[in-house]
Amino acid sequence: MRVAILGVGLIGGSIGLAARSRAGAHVTGLDPDGAATTEGITLGALDAAASDIRSAVSEADVVVVCVPVGSVVGVATEALAHAGPDTVVTDVGSAKAPIVSAIDDPRFIGGHPLAGAETAGVRHAREDLVDGAPWYLTPRPGTPGVPFERLTRFVAALGARPQAIDPETHDRVMAAVSHLPHVVANVLVAQAARALDGDGTLPATGPSFRDATRVAGANTSMWTDIYLANRDALVAGIDDALARLTAVRADLVAGNADAIAAWNDAARDDRDALLGVGPHGGDVVQLRVAVPNRPGVIADLALTLGRAGVNIDDMTLAPAPDDETGEVALWVPAARADQARSLVTGLGLAVREGEEG
Amino acid sequence: MRVAILGVGLIGGSIGLAARSRAGAHVTGLDPDGAATTEGITLGALDAAASDIRSAVSEADVVVVCVPVGSVVGVATEALAHAGPDTVVTDVGSAKAPIVSAIDDPRFIGGHPLAGAETAGVRHAREDLVDGAPWYLTPRPGTPGVPFERLTRFVAALGARPQAIDPETHDRVMAAVSHLPHVVANVLVAQAARALDGDGTLPATGPSFRDATRVAGANTSMWTDIYLANRDALVAGIDDALARLTAVRADLVAGNADAIAAWNDAARDDRDALLGVGPHGGDVVQLRVAVPNRPGVIADLALTLGRAGVNIDDMTLAPAPDDETGEVALWVPAARADQARSLVTGLGLAVREGEEG
Repeated sequence: MRVAILGVGLIGGSIGLAARSRAGAHVTGLDPDGAATTEGITLGALDAAASDIRSAVSEADVVVVCVPVGSVVGVATEALAHAGPDTVVTDVGSAKAPIVSAIDDPRFIGGHPLAGAETAGVRHAREDLVDGAPWYLTPRPGTPGVPFERLTRFVAALGARPQAIDPETHDRVMAAVSHLPHVVANVLVAQAARALDGDGTLPATGPSFRDATRVAGANTSMWTDIYLANRDALVAGIDDALARLTAVRADLVAGNADAIAAWNDAARDDRDALLGVGPHGGDVVQLRVAVPNRPGVIADLALTLGRAGVNIDDMTLAPAPDDETGEVALWVPAARADQARSLVTGLGLAVREGEEG
Repeated sequence: MRVAILGVGLIGGSIGLAARSRAGAHVTGLDPDGAATTEGITLGALDAAASDIRSAVSEADVVVVCVPVGSVVGVATEALAHAGPDTVVTDVGSAKAPIVSAIDDPRFIGGHPLAGAETAGVRHAREDLVDGAPWYLTPRPGTPGVPFERLTRFVAALGARPQAIDPETHDRVMAAVSHLPHVVANVLVAQAARALDGDGTLPATGPSFRDATRVAGANTSMWTDIYLANRDALVAGIDDALARLTAVRADLVAGNADAIAAWNDAARDDRDALLGVGPHGGDVVQLRVAVPNRPGVIADLALTLGRAGVNIDDMTLAPAPDDETGEVALWVPAARADQARSLVTGLGLAVREGEEG
């Protein structure tokens, strides 16, 4: 099998590595940055570098477009113009409906592996990048069976889990679980900055704000591209969020405690269902531990709990602004909380408990 | 010094423990649940149980109202009716302006220690609960110096860091960094549940959704109380969030890439400033590591990095829905990322890299 990789970064390079070693493919790469293809060859991700799209794709059985999502349509369209009648062309962009609807060719099938980021360079490429990762494919009603089957087998041979999904569902789900949370994180930091009015850093309110805004201001060129590529689904998600915020605002203004309690209960049920927490499996307690911010401290903590057989259900580490100390939040089974508390205290670390923050 | 604790739970009990052992105080407790005061005495948090507010506060120098925030005004008002002219009465509720404005008495000074949760019982009380925690106090222009000084010294003697703040600023900051993030987490899970439309659990998109919604559906009675107690500041925060979401929606619809890029850059700057990350100090790389979900695995990982001198800037652990495997996201200094990657791989664990999810 001959594979062409258009765009040789972390994802393109990783696909090349896996295609060569796991699928026995011959891989040709093309990238506007010549150093990337040279490095791809050195790393074993590519057999050869192409000088233009025509020579890259003309002999290929599978073409994988690994450019930023905003450039997929242009590159894929050019690839299709030069590819043979039996070639299958796919991409790895994180929005699908706008791409699939812009490319009217039965040889194109959209794709999106849930792994990696387009920002990192080919030097970070790894054969196992997509190991076990869901890899969405978006065939259309008119997609012929042969190229779809070939692409599915190719993706599975790389080590990923191919999963067919219609493009609109894909985009709605990605907007809901990834793109809107990123937008909301940006909004939360902006409103907090305004609330503090230049009054320095946050009070030590625990990890909740830090967690909620961890992705705020993520790589701008990549995320601007993603937001715009998936803007229809994202705008629908924003509209939904606006309606929900407006509804809870009305309940607050009305002082409607019953409605707020019911809304909060529903959120817990939704979260448990979404994260696959059983209705009786989620009984965990949060412990907060003040720790010096140095290598090894988390290890001591986790090792002590691990040796005693206390599983850590979830954990976050929030460094303090001074970078000298930090706070680890641990979620442990409620039944083991007392044991965990004394183990941590026994290490000379102070434990606080609480949900607020 | 004689202290009265009205409401003997985690916070009231912890204040009692610290007041007795660190401030040499005689502590009287009152709680509608008689078992709580009995347990408080057994644990050493209380010297005596009172049978009613009058007897609890009549001899007290300091009265600390530790009931749920929605009940503070009623309890504090009754306490003031029976307290002596030199008694100072304070509370620990997480909203301040509505409480302070409802109690027109120079002997009352609002307070809020950033520690613990009102939900947990007195059995979890610890002398060091507020150790090093900020403890906001909200004196008014008319608050006499003597009770304010006494309260400040009392709070410092417990081990906390007293900090005067005006009640409106307090409420605005708490809405921004805690209450609105909780509301938004509830909104995010609701919209995601709708987007998936009953289609089971989330795809494995990494920890970002999990982080953003960690606090969704937090303890309903406590949070309904907090939302309503701080509803003015929270409604203002929601209005601000609505305006910001509406603005970015307009930029998306217009396809205004420059505006979206600038908004995203501003979010990163805001976050760095809020979390005290220096403009050149935040260069970290995220590594995702698939791990078996068993005690000790995080320890092995953290210990291996710690031994090699690689500091972990931040960490989250997201268990997979099957509870058999999980994914640890680590943020390590970019300069140590390659080293961290080979150390983790050397443990036989698969590393993925990426920002998306």
